[in-house]
Amino acid sequence: MVTTASPQQKEHDIFAAMAPHDAGSFANNRTPLIRNCWYAAGRASEICRTPLARKFLGVDVVLYRTENGDPVAMRNRCPHRSFPLARGKLVGDRLVCGYHGMEFGSDGVCAHMPALPHVPATASVKTFPIVDRGPLTWIWMGSPDLADEALIPDTFWLSDPAWGTVSGDFHIKSDYVAMHENLIDQTHFPFLHPDTVGTPEYARSKLTASTENNQVVIRRELRNAPPPGVYGKPANIMHKLVDRTSEARFVSPALHTAYARVSVVDPDPGEPSLYRYNITHVFTPETNDSIHYWWFNSRDYLPGDAAIDRFMLEAHTQAYSEDVEALEWINEVVRTDGEEQFDLSFAPDKPGLMARRVMYRLAMAEQG
Amino acid sequence: MVTTASPQQKEHDIFAAMAPHDAGSFANNRTPLIRNCWYAAGRASEICRTPLARKFLGVDVVLYRTENGDPVAMRNRCPHRSFPLARGKLVGDRLVCGYHGMEFGSDGVCAHMPALPHVPATASVKTFPIVDRGPLTWIWMGSPDLADEALIPDTFWLSDPAWGTVSGDFHIKSDYVAMHENLIDQTHFPFLHPDTVGTPEYARSKLTASTENNQVVIRRELRNAPPPGVYGKPANIMHKLVDRTSEARFVSPALHTAYARVSVVDPDPGEPSLYRYNITHVFTPETNDSIHYWWFNSRDYLPGDAAIDRFMLEAHTQAYSEDVEALEWINEVVRTDGEEQFDLSFAPDKPGLMARRVMYRLAMAEQG
Amino acid sequence: MVTTASPQQKEHDIFAAMAPHDAGSFANNRTPLIRNCWYAAGRASEICRTPLARKFLGVDVVLYRTENGDPVAMRNRCPHRSFPLARGKLVGDRLVCGYHGMEFGSDGVCAHMPALPHVPATASVKTFPIVDRGPLTWIWMGSPDLADEALIPDTFWLSDPAWGTVSGDFHIKSDYVAMHENLIDQTHFPFLHPDTVGTPEYARSKLTASTENNQVVIRRELRNAPPPGVYGKPANIMHKLVDRTSEARFVSPALHTAYARVSVVDPDPGEPSLYRYNITHVFTPETNDSIHYWWFNSRDYLPGDAAIDRFMLEAHTQAYSEDVEALEWINEVVRTDGEEQFDLSFAPDKPGLMARRVMYRLAMAEQG
Repeated sequence: MVTTASPQQKEHDIFAAMAPHDAGSFANNRTPLIRNCWYAAGRASEICRTPLARKFLGVDVVLYRTENGDPVAMRNRCPHRSFPLARGKLVGDRLVCGYHGMEFGSDGVCAHMPALPHVPATASVKTFPIVDRGPLTWIWMGSPDLADEALIPDTFWLSDPAWGTVSGDFHIKSDYVAMHENLIDQTHFPFLHPDTVGTPEYARSKLTASTENNQVVIRRELRNAPPPGVYGKPANIMHKLVDRTSEARFVSPALHTAYARVSVVDPDPGEPSLYRYNITHVFTPETNDSIHYWWFNSRDYLPGDAAIDRFMLEAHTQAYSEDVEALEWINEVVRTDGEEQFDLSFAPDKPGLMARRVMYRLAMAEQG
Repeated sequence: MVTTASPQQKEHDIFAAMAPHDAGSFANNRTPLIRNCWYAAGRASEICRTPLARKFLGVDVVLYRTENGDPVAMRNRCPHRSFPLARGKLVGDRLVCGYHGMEFGSDGVCAHMPALPHVPATASVKTFPIVDRGPLTWIWMGSPDLADEALIPDTFWLSDPAWGTVSGDFHIKSDYVAMHENLIDQTHFPFLHPDTVGTPEYARSKLTASTENNQVVIRRELRNAPPPGVYGKPANIMHKLVDRTSEARFVSPALHTAYARVSVVDPDPGEPSLYRYNITHVFTPETNDSIHYWWFNSRDYLPGDAAIDRFMLEAHTQAYSEDVEALEWINEVVRTDGEEQFDLSFAPDKPGLMARRVMYRLAMAEQG
Repeated sequence: MVTTASPQQKEHDIFAAMAPHDAGSFANNRTPLIRNCWYAAGRASEICRTPLARKFLGVDVVLYRTENGDPVAMRNRCPHRSFPLARGKLVGDRLVCGYHGMEFGSDGVCAHMPALPHVPATASVKTFPIVDRGPLTWIWMGSPDLADEALIPDTFWLSDPAWGTVSGDFHIKSDYVAMHENLIDQTHFPFLHPDTVGTPEYARSKLTASTENNQVVIRRELRNAPPPGVYGKPANIMHKLVDRTSEARFVSPALHTAYARVSVVDPDPGEPSLYRYNITHVFTPETNDSIHYWWFNSRDYLPGDAAIDRFMLEAHTQAYSEDVEALEWINEVVRTDGEEQFDLSFAPDKPGLMARRVMYRLAMAEQG
């Protein structure tokens, strides 16, 4: 399905789609979390020889690395008396419980219980598939037999030395559905981010939206417009007009990627005519209303330039802080306001609703 | 109904009234909040050109003023994606959502949605009737068609230059029923407020209590007694005996007024023989167990006297702090003590029970 | 029943005992609190002429002493309007409510209500049996007719001048069942307390366990081993080998006692050959997941030695802090981890399971 957004017509489409018989077909903050998905467990560098406790999808997990560097994830809870294993210590590749000294190998199976002369046959900790990919480590909290590593989304640019990347992270009190909708929606840029990515022209630019293989993609083009500061300043092209192509993609419940391609209409001699930016939003629901979030902003030029790095880090930290604040404010309203809760949707919300529809189907399929 | 409190007899009356078949006829902290009532939204001066978020009866509300000074109240929640509108900004008389720029007029109707070429017909925010009266602004959270401004209670003395008024406010973790009962009850004065309004004689003075048009009034008289410090010191009559008449009135779920008339039995030549005090307790349930509270203490003499103002402010801040503390302690007990909760009532509780009975009837009538 | 722990065999016994049909026969953090039991209300010195509020088994209680020194316990809640009586004041032996001045005798019966000409016949506060025993005061929260003082456990050494005692206390966010299991279990010593009571040999020493009259006792012996620092250092016998006998006893839901008898195999001339230590763990559930805890460590030598006192206080404060931390970590896991909760048990857990079985039976008998 590919649609060109003629807003007047689309609004009516959306209202039709949201007729009472369809009211429940979009995920929201009460939809069960989707489990069969590779989620980021953290930065690869966070997972090391000191056990790290982190909650994913409501489950307490402990993360560490074996001596040869493989990441390990298991429930952060000794099956004997519920002691959090992250409070124990690593001895070789075994995680030793701090309460009674039970030792668990990286496969979660008990390898030694000091107070017993033999290893208790039934004692093991549930482990989770976990895989490094560049700067991130991915975990699978769903059915282990479905944990196909080929499903880990490709984010090659995060490891490519030709790209310069800045990065940050947040812990957010919000539900991840609202965050996906925020990320795929660009009509809020001029209002929530007036000083960074938002320009007035941008809110009215054309878009196409499509769903394909449970991904939702929207593309926008804007011709002969001044560049937004966040892309124009680091490239030193604020005095130029540019053509701008952007894509925002709901890749999976765990990942939203975006790119921007900025073409200088009239480049100066010897200067590049194209600047590419890839943005990677990686996030994992901690619970139904809290999120672990890591973001990456990558560019295909001057990868080692510290001044550009500093500018990009500051500008994006500001923009994403604005999103985080908005999501937390909304979450607070939705959870504490005593009046009836509902949302009105309009044509520009179609991409978000398409993503929420995918999430709803995935969640319901797991419940079935 | 007018009753003279003959305690012995009244106690039995009350016990009869509280027999099992009548156990539920007095409002308490689990009774639904009464909505068809003018409540204070705040001081008129608090409501200005910076949007103000405040919760009333469990509902998030945003308050602001139009350019010509009219107060506006609407749900603090954009109907599109639940963004709290108080986090947006005012442009002229329109409140602009900080997320996608939707603009709402003071009637709550959407006047502009930037991402759409037209105004979406269905988009509006629920507004609430709101009216200025002297130093206070009143809001109606119930059925709009019942919001008759003539029902706003008269508190003329708060605006009359012949009266000197001091004022303060509290946010209280308590239910408003317990607060009404506290205010109409004067038998606690000698115990909770021994240093201010309470005198030992006062607890035993005669009272009459009546219910009329959903108001409950109690009157007390005390003759030839020393004045309490809070009334005697500012009037400089502590060395005198006085006759004291006081009234406490449950005016509505939103308002309790009281007055004291202090007559000097033997006034010095050239000195007044009568001193009048009006006390205005304005409060609005934020939720079932929290309250917005504004109090005013007015006197009909020396309205500009800074020393008297300072004395009255200090003395009443202390007395009301004692009430607030007691109400919060009680609320904590009622909500966390694991044993069975119940109240015994006695004859002196009759005025409070009369007010609680009115509140119960009003609440039940709304539940229909 | 007396069993010698042959771990291989016992493990199977335990698994059999925990087959599905028996899954619910061990108390855990969801088992109703046991009420028919003498619990510590506090140190006798804490209960004085200033009313003290404390919650036991979910019930708010106020504690004070009469003028002749008898302890009094009653609900911390005036039956009139739920004011917490501990916020009132003592006048003679009567507790006077801070709200309306109702006065309650030490029998909980209202003796005076200032606003009434007579004492209201129905007004009284529920009292609880309460008794001093040495440094502790014990309270009975269950059926008053079962409150036999002969059931208060004997802890004579706490009052015997021949014994030197150090003591401390904690407020713990944990359930008391897990705490009992922690105290009766000694296999965690080498792991949770490696620097104090734990020695590697100790985890493998033989034990006998028995249940008798709803008490569970385990005994261990260890011969010809170096003493642990906590017992060897104060006695100045770290260079010696010792025989060590220890007992841990689940005395009641309110009390765990332990003793250690340390015999020097080859005492120096003129030095004692036996050192005795009694440990008294007194604790009372505040709620289902919080505990009031007082501990006492007593020795039968050099009772006035300040240096030994200091050493014992520091060493045991450290050890018990480690237990408290572990219990709070476990409680946090059990209450917030979203995955299925269960425990695996092994042969060395038998003593703890025996105690949990006793607690389960006691709790169920009260529910019956």
